[in-house]
Amino acid sequence: MLNQGTDLDRAFHALADPSRRLIVERLARGPTSVSELADPLSMSLSAVMQHLQVLEACSLIASEKAGRVRTCRIEPEMLRQVEQWVTRQRTTWERRLDRLGDYLGEERQEETQQ
Amino acid sequence: MLNQGTDLDRAFHALADPSRRLIVERLARGPTSVSELADPLSMSLSAVMQHLQVLEACSLIASEKAGRVRTCRIEPEMLRQVEQWVTRQRTTWERRLDRLGDYLGEERQEETQQ
Repeated sequence: MLNQGTDLDRAFHALADPSRRLIVERLARGPTSVSELADPLSMSLSAVMQHLQVLEACSLIASEKAGRVRTCRIEPEMLRQVEQWVTRQRTTWERRLDRLGDYLGEERQEETQQ
Repeated sequence: MLNQGTDLDRAFHALADPSRRLIVERLARGPTSVSELADPLSMSLSAVMQHLQVLEACSLIASEKAGRVRTCRIEPEMLRQVEQWVTRQRTTWERRLDRLGDYLGEERQEETQQ
């Protein structure tokens, strides 16, 4: 069970950076070595490593080292938690609009029947 | 058309704060005055106003003043942009897993047929 508050804080913070979102977009397509991640970002390896540390600290990604190569991959659970929170707000908002629409529809019907 | 990069940066940053997420959760249930928002948060009005400014600056919410009462409401478009980005990464990741599963299934079938 994740500590919802703190974990979500850190995940949203991590995703507020465009380079970190690019890293997540790349890793969503499959596990990748750190140097493969660095190339298209035009960033130094150490800058990429810092971003990866932020993403790994909030469990959005995981990495493991085999020999001299560190490979990173998505950790889907945290991405799901972020998605669930946002989806919950959007659907709560839309359901309220639907109820409001129903209510106004009924009001209008009653008015025309009177 | 939103400027995807910057807007998403600011929206994710805004949502990294637990008080701001509480405000969004409350507003998803319907428009609310600033003082009604402040009560359950046990925060001063000025602290709530600061959070609202951050949320309004990135178009997650909007507000308007009628007389002395400022009422806030969700702006759904930005919430949708955040949701779409996260959902895209999650589905890309899951589709890749499905393809991998299909591939491994076929490999196993070929092995048993030999």
